Amino acid sequence: MLYLFKELFDKEELRGGRFGIEREALRVKEDGKLATTDHPYVFGNKLLHPYITTDFSESQPELITPAFQTTREAYSFLNALYDIVALEIGDEYLWPQSMPCDIPDEQYIPIAKYSDSKECKIAREYREKLFKKYGGKKQLISGIHYNFSFDEALFEKLYRHQKPSISYKLFKDDLYLKVARNYLRYRWLLIYLTGAAPIIHTSYTRECTKKLVPIQEDSFSNKGAVSYRNGECGYKNHTDLFPDYTSVESYIASIEDFVKENMIQSHKELYTQIRPKAKDNKNLLSSLKNEGIQYIEIRSIDINPFEKSGMSMEDLEFTHVFMLYLLLKEETDYLDWQREALFNQKLISKNGLESIMLKKDGKSKDRSEWMLDILAQMNNMSQVLGLEWEALIDTFVEKALDVTKTCAYKITKKVEKEGYLVAHIQLAKAYKQEAYANRYKLEGYEDFELSTQILMKEAIKIGISIEVLDRSDNFIALSKGDKTEYVKQATKTSKDSYITMLMMENKTVTKKILDKNNVCVPKGIEVNATQNLGFVACKYANKPLVVKPKSTNFGIGISIFPEGASEEDIIYALEIAFKHDDTILIEEFAEGKEYRFLVIGDEVAGILHRVPANVKGDGHHTIRELVAIKNQDFLRGKGYKTPLEKIELDTSSELFLKQKGIGFDDIPKVSEVVYLRENSNISTGGDSIDYTESIPDKFKKIAVQAAKAVEAKFCGVDMMLEDYQSEASNYSIIEINFNPAIHIHSFPYQGKERNIARSVLQVLELI
Amino acid sequence: MLYLFKELFDKEELRGGRFGIEREALRVKEDGKLATTDHPYVFGNKLLHPYITTDFSESQPELITPAFQTTREAYSFLNALYDIVALEIGDEYLWPQSMPCDIPDEQYIPIAKYSDSKECKIAREYREKLFKKYGGKKQLISGIHYNFSFDEALFEKLYRHQKPSISYKLFKDDLYLKVARNYLRYRWLLIYLTGAAPIIHTSYTRECTKKLVPIQEDSFSNKGAVSYRNGECGYKNHTDLFPDYTSVESYIASIEDFVKENMIQSHKELYTQIRPKAKDNKNLLSSLKNEGIQYIEIRSIDINPFEKSGMSMEDLEFTHVFMLYLLLKEETDYLDWQREALFNQKLISKNGLESIMLKKDGKSKDRSEWMLDILAQMNNMSQVLGLEWEALIDTFVEKALDVTKTCAYKITKKVEKEGYLVAHIQLAKAYKQEAYANRYKLEGYEDFELSTQILMKEAIKIGISIEVLDRSDNFIALSKGDKTEYVKQATKTSKDSYITMLMMENKTVTKKILDKNNVCVPKGIEVNATQNLGFVACKYANKPLVVKPKSTNFGIGISIFPEGASEEDIIYALEIAFKHDDTILIEEFAEGKEYRFLVIGDEVAGILHRVPANVKGDGHHTIRELVAIKNQDFLRGKGYKTPLEKIELDTSSELFLKQKGIGFDDIPKVSEVVYLRENSNISTGGDSIDYTESIPDKFKKIAVQAAKAVEAKFCGVDMMLEDYQSEASNYSIIEINFNPAIHIHSFPYQGKERNIARSVLQVLELI
Repeated sequence: MLYLFKELFDKEELRGGRFGIEREALRVKEDGKLATTDHPYVFGNKLLHPYITTDFSESQPELITPAFQTTREAYSFLNALYDIVALEIGDEYLWPQSMPCDIPDEQYIPIAKYSDSKECKIAREYREKLFKKYGGKKQLISGIHYNFSFDEALFEKLYRHQKPSISYKLFKDDLYLKVARNYLRYRWLLIYLTGAAPIIHTSYTRECTKKLVPIQEDSFSNKGAVSYRNGECGYKNHTDLFPDYTSVESYIASIEDFVKENMIQSHKELYTQIRPKAKDNKNLLSSLKNEGIQYIEIRSIDINPFEKSGMSMEDLEFTHVFMLYLLLKEETDYLDWQREALFNQKLISKNGLESIMLKKDGKSKDRSEWMLDILAQMNNMSQVLGLEWEALIDTFVEKALDVTKTCAYKITKKVEKEGYLVAHIQLAKAYKQEAYANRYKLEGYEDFELSTQILMKEAIKIGISIEVLDRSDNFIALSKGDKTEYVKQATKTSKDSYITMLMMENKTVTKKILDKNNVCVPKGIEVNATQNLGFVACKYANKPLVVKPKSTNFGIGISIFPEGASEEDIIYALEIAFKHDDTILIEEFAEGKEYRFLVIGDEVAGILHRVPANVKGDGHHTIRELVAIKNQDFLRGKGYKTPLEKIELDTSSELFLKQKGIGFDDIPKVSEVVYLRENSNISTGGDSIDYTESIPDKFKKIAVQAAKAVEAKFCGVDMMLEDYQSEASNYSIIEINFNPAIHIHSFPYQGKERNIARSVLQVLELI
Repeated sequence: MLYLFKELFDKEELRGGRFGIEREALRVKEDGKLATTDHPYVFGNKLLHPYITTDFSESQPELITPAFQTTREAYSFLNALYDIVALEIGDEYLWPQSMPCDIPDEQYIPIAKYSDSKECKIAREYREKLFKKYGGKKQLISGIHYNFSFDEALFEKLYRHQKPSISYKLFKDDLYLKVARNYLRYRWLLIYLTGAAPIIHTSYTRECTKKLVPIQEDSFSNKGAVSYRNGECGYKNHTDLFPDYTSVESYIASIEDFVKENMIQSHKELYTQIRPKAKDNKNLLSSLKNEGIQYIEIRSIDINPFEKSGMSMEDLEFTHVFMLYLLLKEETDYLDWQREALFNQKLISKNGLESIMLKKDGKSKDRSEWMLDILAQMNNMSQVLGLEWEALIDTFVEKALDVTKTCAYKITKKVEKEGYLVAHIQLAKAYKQEAYANRYKLEGYEDFELSTQILMKEAIKIGISIEVLDRSDNFIALSKGDKTEYVKQATKTSKDSYITMLMMENKTVTKKILDKNNVCVPKGIEVNATQNLGFVACKYANKPLVVKPKSTNFGIGISIFPEGASEEDIIYALEIAFKHDDTILIEEFAEGKEYRFLVIGDEVAGILHRVPANVKGDGHHTIRELVAIKNQDFLRGKGYKTPLEKIELDTSSELFLKQKGIGFDDIPKVSEVVYLRENSNISTGGDSIDYTESIPDKFKKIAVQAAKAVEAKFCGVDMMLEDYQSEASNYSIIEINFNPAIHIHSFPYQGKERNIARSVLQVLELI
C-alpha cells in the first residue's frame, strides 16, 4: 500500500486533512481548590455556543475548535479560546492537568447548569445519571479530544484507482475502521508519548490513591506512572466493552446490544479510546449508517501541563503522522487483539516509564524495542512518500529512548519539587498572564488588522461563528443561527449603504451635506489642477488654513497651517495634495484640538485624542532611557501589530529636540513632558488618550447628528474643539471617516479600555 | 457710482449672479396647426413638476430652468429641457416663435387640464377667467421670462460700505426697484435687440391683422415691425396700468388698488414688462413685504426662432450686462417716465426697424443715436470695471447700426421667402432632429459619465429635481417631495450596502458566496506573489483557463486562454495580473460566449453581448470605407462621450487583419463580416448587441439569484452561456460587477433602446 500511495499521491494530498481539538479544563481558585462558581454568563447558552461550553461539571469549561485544514490553525484557535476564557473567569484559573485539582466531596461538585428548555433538561438529566453511576470526582478528569479526517480527495482518488465493487461510502468506512482498529492496537504508543497525568491529588477518590505512594504532601503516584486518566482509575466504563469494529453495521449492532443490556445509557457513554464520528452526531448511529464515517475522534491524549492550550504543536503533528501510519499499516490476524490492546494501554498508563514487556499478537515484546520499530516504520513511510516528517519523528524517537524526555516524567519531577497544587497553579498563572498580554489580539489571526482581530475575538467569546472569506482582505462572515453578516475590516458592513461610504469619502459632498444639516464645518474652496495655483495661493496666504485632497483618508496628503503660510508653502502643500487627488480643498483652520468621535449605531462608542510621541521625566532617567521604559508596554509594538507603536529615536526626533536645544541623553525634570516629534500619529509612537467621559454630551450628540446626516452607522467623526470641557466651546467637524479603526478605542494608552467590538456586533444585530 | 464699484468689487463679484429662464412653446402638428392633444402623460403632475409644466393652454408646454450661477448653465439646461420635451410629443413639434402658429377658433383652444385637487381647480378656474376676458388666441402668445438676481455678496458688501440708515432688506429693495424703473425706461432697447415676432398668422385675431399688410399667403406684417408680442396686439392688460415703483410698499399698494377696482383679478394678471419677485411667489405680495425683493423677472424677450431653446447665449449675456448697467445708471427726474416708456415700447415694437424718433424726458430723440449712446455707456462701464464684456457689446452695436442684423429682420426675410408656417416648421423639425441626435446625453452635463447623464435626463423628464454635489465625481442628489436620494455614477446608491459592493469587488468572496447559493462559477485557485509561479504554471499549462486579478474591474489585467497556454504564457499573464492586485485567480475557462445581465432591483433590465469592432461587406466598399460609413452613426464618438466608440484603423487592427491575409483596402463580399480586432471592448469600437428578449428566462432568474446572493440591487452579472438559445445550455457566472454602466443597455448598437434609467429611479423609490 505504501508504494501504491507513493505512486498515486503528492505530499500535499497526503499531508492534507481536517483537524479539530476539544479541550476540557477545570476552573480553580488560586489555592488549587475547584471553583464552584457559575460558568461565565458572557458565554451565553452552553448548548448553542460553537466554541465554548461546559463538559460534565459547571466548573469544567470545554473549548472546541472548528475543523481546520492545518494543525497549526487548530492549535492557534485553541490558544485563542484559552485566552478568551482565561480573561472571563475573574480571579480563577484553568487547571492545566488532566487529573483533577483539589476537589470537594462528591455532593459539592456542581453539575453543569442549564436553562429550562427541553434540550437543556435532557443534558442535565444525562449528567445526573452519570454522577450517580460513576461518581462526580471521576467526571472531573479532563482531556484532549483530537478530531481528524483525511483529505477527502485522497480517498476519492484511491477509490477511482482501486475501483472496488463496494460503494464509495463503504470503501471510506472500511478505511476509517482500519485506522480505528490499528489505533486501538497501537494507542499505548501515543499514551507513552503524550501521557501527562502521572499524579493524583489527595482529594481524589480514596479507592485510587490508597494503592499509591505519596510523592509530595498533597499527592500520590507510583513508579513509572504515565497517565492515571488512561489507567484503571481513569474515566472508563465499569466493565470493559469491546464493540465490533469490522463494519459500521457491526459497530452499531454492538452499541445497541450494550444499551439493551443496560451496560450504558447510550452511545455517548461508551468510553472507548477512539470513536467513529458522523455528519450528524446528535443522531450518531443513524447518521453513521446513512452517511458513513466522516471523521474519527482520538480520546487518549492527556492535557499537557507545559502548554497553555493543553496540547503542543509537536504532539498535534505527531498524531497526524500516526493517523497516516495507521491507515497504511497492515493488520495482523490475531483474534484477541482488543483485550491485548487494553492490557497494553493499562500497563503503559500505570508503568510506562519503567522497562516493561507488552503483549504483541499473544507474545511478549519489549516496550522500547517495539516503540522504536514503529517509529522506524513511520520514518520510512515519511521518506518513501516524501512527507518531510523525519525530523519531527526523531524528536519522538528521543522520548522512546529516554523516559526523562517525556511529559509524564517532567511533570512528576516538578510536582516532587513544588507540590501538586503549587506546581500546576504556577503554570496556570503564567498562562493567564499570557492571555492578558494577548488581550488585544487573536492568536492565529495576527495577520489580520487589529480591529478585525478584536471583533472576531469578541464574536468567538459570545458564541458567534466566524468564517474567513478572504484573509488578506480581512473579509469575514459572522453567523448566529440562520443569520449571517459579512464584514470587511471590522466596520465595513451591510449596515452602511454604498452611497453613505461615498458621501464620507468625498469631503466636498460631506461638507455640503453637513452644512445642509446645520452641522458646523470649516469654510473652504475647491482647487483643481487647471486653476492658477499662484492666484489661489495669493488669496489664501498668511491665513490659518488646511490643505487636503478631496478624497483620501488617514490624513494622507494633508498640510495644516495653524499660523498661516506663505504663498510658496501653500503651492507646495497643494502640489503634495495633488499627488493624491485631482481636487484639493483649502479650508479655514479650525481652532482647538482634534478629537476622534467613534460613532457606532446611534451612539458615540468612544472619543480619543492623540498626542505626539512623548516621555514624562522622573528627574533620574535620560530621554533615551525613558523611551526604553515606555516601550516595554505590551500594547506597544512594531508594524501595526499592536494598538500602539514603539517610540523610535530617529533623526527626525533628534532634529525636533535639537530645535529646542535638548538631546536624547538629557534628563527631563520630574513630571516634565518632552515631546519627540510634531505629528500625533499613533504610527510614530503617539499616545491615544480616551476622553469619552470628559467631553460634554452636546458634542456627542453633534457627532451622532453628523453621522446621521450621511446615514452612517459606523464612522469616525473628527471634531475640532476649542475647549473640550465647555459646552460653550466652538466646534467644527473637519471630516467624517468611514471604516474607523476600533482598536485605538478598545486599547488606548491612557483611559478605559472599551469593548467596542460588542457595540459593532450589536449594530450588526448579532447580539 | 461707477467708480465706487470699481473701487469695491472685482470682476468675479460683478459678473456673478443667479440666472433662470422660463420658455413657453406651442405644440404644433407638421402642417403648423396647433396640436390639441394632451400634454404628455410622462411629465406627470403639472403643478409639481419643477422643470416642465404648461402655461395657459394644454397645448403650451412651459420649460423652466432652476437658477444657475452662470448664464451658460441656464442656457444648456434650457436646451436640455427642449430635447426632453421634443422627444416626448410624438410627431408634434415645438413652435419656435412667440406669435402663435395656425390656431383654431377660440372655442377649440384647449385650456390646460388639471386633476381634481383643490390647487388644480384654482389653476383651471384662473385660466377660464383669462380666456373669457382676453380671448384664447392672445393667451397663446409665448415668450421668454428671464429671472435674475445679483450676487448677494455684492449687495452685502455695498451695504457694509455705504452704511445707510435703512435696513439691508430695504436697501436691497431700493436697488432692485431702481433696476426695475430703469428697465422700464430702457426696455425699448432690449425689444429692438431681441425682438423676433414681427409677423402674424392669418388665423390670429382679425382685429390685429386687419390693419396689417400680407407678407405671404399665410401671414401679415407692417414695415419695420419688431415684436407684435410687445406691441398693441400683444399680451397686455386692457387698460395701461402704471404701478408705483418708488418702494415695495407703494408697489404693493398700487396692485391692491388695481385689484380693488376690478381691473385685474390678482397680481398675476398685471402684465408688466418687469416683475419684482419674492421668496414665496405663491404669496407674492406678503412675501415681498416681509422678505423683500429676491430677484427680478424680465418679460420682454421674444422667442428667438433661430435658437432651439428660444434664447441665444449672446442675448442671455447681453441681458446680464444690461442689468448691471441699469443698476449703475443714474435716473432722471422726469415725472411722466412710465407713460413715455410705454410709448417708446409700443413704437419700437411696431416700427423699430424704421428710422424713428423716440421720446426722452419729454423730448424727441433719434432711436439710433440714443441706442448707440447707451451701448457706449455700457462699453465704458465694462472697460472701467474690467468686465471684459466689450466684444459682446460690440456685436449689439452692429445690430444698432444695421437693422438687417436683427432677429426681427431675419425672420421677416425668411417668412417672405418660405411662408410663415413652412419657415417655422422647418426650423422646428431641425431642432427636433437635434434633440434625437442628443438623446443619449444631457446638454450642459456632457462632462458627466453617460450613465449619469441618462439618469439625470430621465429624472428631469419625470419631474425629479436634480442637484449636482460633485461634478468630477458624478455625485448627484435626486429629490422628489421630501425624499432625497444621493447617487454617484448612476448606480452607486443607498440601495446597495457597503459590504455588498465589497463582496462583488472581491472575486474570491463573490465565488464563495455564489457557490454557497448553488450558482455555478468556474473552479479555480488563488495565487499569491509569494508562491512559486513556475510550479503553479506547470500545474495549469495547456488547460483552457482565465488569469485575473482578485479585485479589479472592467476586465483590467485579465488574460483568457480558451485553448490553454504554455507555462511561459501563464507566468507572463500572472505577471500582468500582479500589476493590479496582490492576489490572482486562475480559473477554468468557461465555454461559450459572455453575456452581461444588467440586474436592477429584482429584475434583469437588459442583456448585452459585445462583439469586436467589425464591418459587414457590401461587395463594393473597402474595409476602410465601410469603417468610415459605420463611424457616421451619431452614437459613435471618441473618448467615451457617446454610447459607442468610433472604429479606429490602427496598427493593432492592421496586424490583426494581416494575420488573415487581408488589408484595409480589400473589399469584403456581400454580407461578409470582417472583424478588426480580437477584443470586444466597446472602447475599441466593439458593437453592443441587445439579447434581452432572446435569452431564456431561466438564465435571467439565475442572474437575479446571483445578485440576491450578494444582496445587490444594481449589478452587472457576467455569464458564460454555451448556447444562449437553449434552456439546457451550460452556464457559469464569471463575475458580478458593481456600478454597472447603464448607457450600453440604453443605447445598444443593435436591438431595442431601453429606458434603464427609469428602472433605476424605480428602485430608488423616486417613481
